[in-house]
Amino acid sequence: MCGIVGYLGRREAYPLIMKGLKRLEYRGYDSAGIAVFQQNKLNVFKKKGKVADLEQAIGAKDLNAQAGIGHTRWATHGEPNDANAHPHLSGDKKLAIIHNGIIENYAALKKRLESKGHRFLSETDSEVLVHFIEDIRQETGETLEDAVRIALREVVGAYAIVLMSEDHPGRLIAARKGSPLVIGIGKDEYFLASDATPIVEYTKDVIYLNDLEIAVVTAGELRITAPDKTEKPLFIQKVELELEAIEKGGYPHFMLKEIFGQPKSIADSMRGRIHAGNESIQLGGLTGYFDRLADASRIIFIGCGTSWHAGLVAEYLFEELARVNVEVEYASEFRYRNPVIHPGDVVIAISQSGETADTLAAIELAKENGATILGVCNAVGSSIARATHAGAYLHAGPEIGVASTKAFTSQVTVLALMAIALGRRKGTLPDHTFRELLNGLQSLPGQIEQVLRNSDRIKEIGYIFTYARNFIYLGRGVHFPVALEGALKLKEISYIHAEGYPAAEMKHGPIALIDEDMPVIFIATRDSSYEKIVSNIQEVKARKGRVIAIVTEGDQLIKTLVDFTIEIPWTHEMISPLLSVVPLQLLSYYIAVMRGRNVDQPRNLAKSVTVE
Amino acid sequence: MCGIVGYLGRREAYPLIMKGLKRLEYRGYDSAGIAVFQQNKLNVFKKKGKVADLEQAIGAKDLNAQAGIGHTRWATHGEPNDANAHPHLSGDKKLAIIHNGIIENYAALKKRLESKGHRFLSETDSEVLVHFIEDIRQETGETLEDAVRIALREVVGAYAIVLMSEDHPGRLIAARKGSPLVIGIGKDEYFLASDATPIVEYTKDVIYLNDLEIAVVTAGELRITAPDKTEKPLFIQKVELELEAIEKGGYPHFMLKEIFGQPKSIADSMRGRIHAGNESIQLGGLTGYFDRLADASRIIFIGCGTSWHAGLVAEYLFEELARVNVEVEYASEFRYRNPVIHPGDVVIAISQSGETADTLAAIELAKENGATILGVCNAVGSSIARATHAGAYLHAGPEIGVASTKAFTSQVTVLALMAIALGRRKGTLPDHTFRELLNGLQSLPGQIEQVLRNSDRIKEIGYIFTYARNFIYLGRGVHFPVALEGALKLKEISYIHAEGYPAAEMKHGPIALIDEDMPVIFIATRDSSYEKIVSNIQEVKARKGRVIAIVTEGDQLIKTLVDFTIEIPWTHEMISPLLSVVPLQLLSYYIAVMRGRNVDQPRNLAKSVTVE
Repeated sequence: MCGIVGYLGRREAYPLIMKGLKRLEYRGYDSAGIAVFQQNKLNVFKKKGKVADLEQAIGAKDLNAQAGIGHTRWATHGEPNDANAHPHLSGDKKLAIIHNGIIENYAALKKRLESKGHRFLSETDSEVLVHFIEDIRQETGETLEDAVRIALREVVGAYAIVLMSEDHPGRLIAARKGSPLVIGIGKDEYFLASDATPIVEYTKDVIYLNDLEIAVVTAGELRITAPDKTEKPLFIQKVELELEAIEKGGYPHFMLKEIFGQPKSIADSMRGRIHAGNESIQLGGLTGYFDRLADASRIIFIGCGTSWHAGLVAEYLFEELARVNVEVEYASEFRYRNPVIHPGDVVIAISQSGETADTLAAIELAKENGATILGVCNAVGSSIARATHAGAYLHAGPEIGVASTKAFTSQVTVLALMAIALGRRKGTLPDHTFRELLNGLQSLPGQIEQVLRNSDRIKEIGYIFTYARNFIYLGRGVHFPVALEGALKLKEISYIHAEGYPAAEMKHGPIALIDEDMPVIFIATRDSSYEKIVSNIQEVKARKGRVIAIVTEGDQLIKTLVDFTIEIPWTHEMISPLLSVVPLQLLSYYIAVMRGRNVDQPRNLAKSVTVE
Repeated sequence: MCGIVGYLGRREAYPLIMKGLKRLEYRGYDSAGIAVFQQNKLNVFKKKGKVADLEQAIGAKDLNAQAGIGHTRWATHGEPNDANAHPHLSGDKKLAIIHNGIIENYAALKKRLESKGHRFLSETDSEVLVHFIEDIRQETGETLEDAVRIALREVVGAYAIVLMSEDHPGRLIAARKGSPLVIGIGKDEYFLASDATPIVEYTKDVIYLNDLEIAVVTAGELRITAPDKTEKPLFIQKVELELEAIEKGGYPHFMLKEIFGQPKSIADSMRGRIHAGNESIQLGGLTGYFDRLADASRIIFIGCGTSWHAGLVAEYLFEELARVNVEVEYASEFRYRNPVIHPGDVVIAISQSGETADTLAAIELAKENGATILGVCNAVGSSIARATHAGAYLHAGPEIGVASTKAFTSQVTVLALMAIALGRRKGTLPDHTFRELLNGLQSLPGQIEQVLRNSDRIKEIGYIFTYARNFIYLGRGVHFPVALEGALKLKEISYIHAEGYPAAEMKHGPIALIDEDMPVIFIATRDSSYEKIVSNIQEVKARKGRVIAIVTEGDQLIKTLVDFTIEIPWTHEMISPLLSVVPLQLLSYYIAVMRGRNVDQPRNLAKSVTVE
């Protein structure tokens, strides 16, 4: 989840790398560093904090160079400080590495190296790796490229690395396993990065490095080799990312831009998929796999964080509309649980970035057990998109805000289309419901506009609760995952301890937390569990909790019971999470801004979690 | 979840009812009240607060009476205050009711009655019910018993009620639907109560009233009738509850008594179930149903609160040991989700009290869909035990502390026995693992003693964290539900906002909460995910979180990483939750005591949740 940038070519490397790091900062931002070649010497600067802190520390120093590497870090081993920041150097200071991922057997390697006299300046696994490569070179006399190959054979874990060596000033060496690495190809210049965002400004031609491959970049040449040293053909792809999509476009934060972008991103997720006067749904990416989905004995959704919440919403949708058994699993737990998987099972992996390490590993496990794997990702060509048998992209455009908003609503939109198409195919979905749902989906962008026009009201409520220490979010049925997602948003960006619960579970323990200091948010729209949720609201009010309720417009009853209501338009219950989540996103955003938090780069977090 | 007591006989009713209310206080305790007959007049006293507050308010008043009713309340409609306390009176003050449960259509009934001139003194649904009965008598001229019958036909909801009328001083009328009601039969005296605890001191002969039946108690006679007025034969059962089991036995709180009672209660749960030199497991209550369990296409566990956590542990056990597909559902969510259930599915309902309303309703739904239903309950003869096809009792003895401790470990013990027996039967469990697990289970009581001997150390750690505002509990695999359970205990009795998470999910959001003020508890015993959890600990320490780790005795590595460790003996991973949960129970207990909380009767909570 760290950010990696490398450059070799005819431009000034330093400003280019710094700009790239800023674009990547959503991946990690507790410390940053760069290394450049100057007069064939390695020059390294590292600093705890944001990329801007590094820039300030470097100041006006002359860093004229045509090659360099840079890194923005999300700490896994060792706390964020200058010493633990990347790049890390070998013992002889001639080799610099930047690394994204985790070396799981670093403790054993470190011990071995220490017994041979190696001394370490940081607590990181990455420094161990660069010393290990140095050690192999010294012991075997192999070329740097082959020393890297040998080292990586012994390393357990996930990584993307880029190396520079004083002995080869015009060369960058990169490798990956489990962590993404993109190589941009310009005219006589090469860009290396953990994703395409730092590259698109300069070139749209990219190569996605595959697991276990090693890339060697020299002036005017790129060579990629397999573990057995055979050379691989260069498979150049076009990135579709536009520069404006990764800039803020007038909004103070990416997150707000993305919340307000949902009418468009949801429409984009549906575009071209609903056909001929709402008569059919076509999901191109699933062609050839829809039969298996229809015959599935069980559908298992896997994901992490917000994507797991989208899976929970999908559970209600698929069970209700297509009458199929559904399970939803945390990817990490699924993976380590020795799950019972049959060849008739269909696993649907959900991941915005398509690089989530736990989800990727869970996919491999399910594949080995013979299940069919479908992907629901946003990032085209990502590792998960490539590891699955088939899938449907979100087409939501890049999401830069670390707290996911538009990716969540697009995930639910695409999963709803899949559930509706499946219900239609299996004959479990009556015609009128089918049409009601498709009409409902198509009205959603307009209805979300309506919710967004209400943002001042939500801001006011946010103002009142700026200094709350805790929050509880409650919902029933399809709104239970929305409660979880609302709580997660608030946690992520405001650092308020918020927790989501199924409303009926309150009585079984959590209600002990309720007193006049505890704000409780209910999703209490007019649907099948309306009466029950009204009872739950009364239980909380009887204990003097302060209640904010998301209600269907025109609701009169709940207004008389609670402290604040936020109205949203009515839509079919099964797709209503797409509306009810929006005020919760806004509420989290405003509370975090009013608390002075860095909304786009909340502490400790990284956008795409490529370590386990 | 309120407590109900009624008495009619030759003794002094007032002290007897007050003692009964105190025994029932674990069911609800935000207000209390009594009504007694004196000179054929109804005399009513009600008070916000505990039963002791009511007693103090009554003081030395002469309440000489041979019949009366009492109630301790857990608020559902209307906040806890004197007016909302039970008993409630009819408009003419001649009829008094005590009520446990919820009248769902009370708002409509209230409107109708108000339009006819009825005026209400409280916000409760119970007062509406007694006015409704009064209104029916006036309108129809029916007897009180028949007026009750007519009223209950129109009422939607769950209830247990007892009525007294000035017009019939020597008579109590009781009825139930969905909420338990026990009638104790002495010599020329009758006891009515929501469970047997207030009764066992006087008699062991009881009748459990069935749904929709009405009981009329007069001096020397008990008559039970069905909705169609036919008289039902009296089916008298023996209660096995001993008085000492419902008293504290030298411990300051029931909860501590129950935590320390776990070596015995777990042994009791296994007693007579492991046979002939560990060669077989016999669960008598499942005889005749074990084939269905072995042939199950899927096992669905349902429960609420702590019982749901036991189901989550069982998911790991049944999947790993018996290789069967397992789902775990919140009873409330399952019920309202239109779940896909097939006749080949086996539903296992988990409930300590056997009276949990949501679980009971979920059972009915699954039954209608043709599933086989098994119960895992503690309370013998409870509604759930009777509603299921077969089941296994916990035999853990009565649990009085509102926060469940020994019931949880006994649930996991019984579920482990079921999973092991099933794995043996299906041939999915190798002989050596089978024996290792049975030996492990039999060593558990001794190992728990060992953990309990460490309670001073846990108390010290509790002291350090007395004033924490928040806690996070993390575990992987089978310890993930233990993390949820540990967090729930702390929430329930200390009112600290504690939350459990699968450790790997931290990175996907909650880690934003981590700073030097956030205590994090890891369950980090030596098992299959040890290395992964060590990585998660390092991620938290890198952000300066304060870490308490539950580790396997002898662990050296984690000691060097974290702030505090609590050691537990090693046991087989699949049954290790039975050990790892114990220090978490103790930690919650000590923190709550040091914060001055009423551990046995935490605010807002009730022991057995008989409303939805």
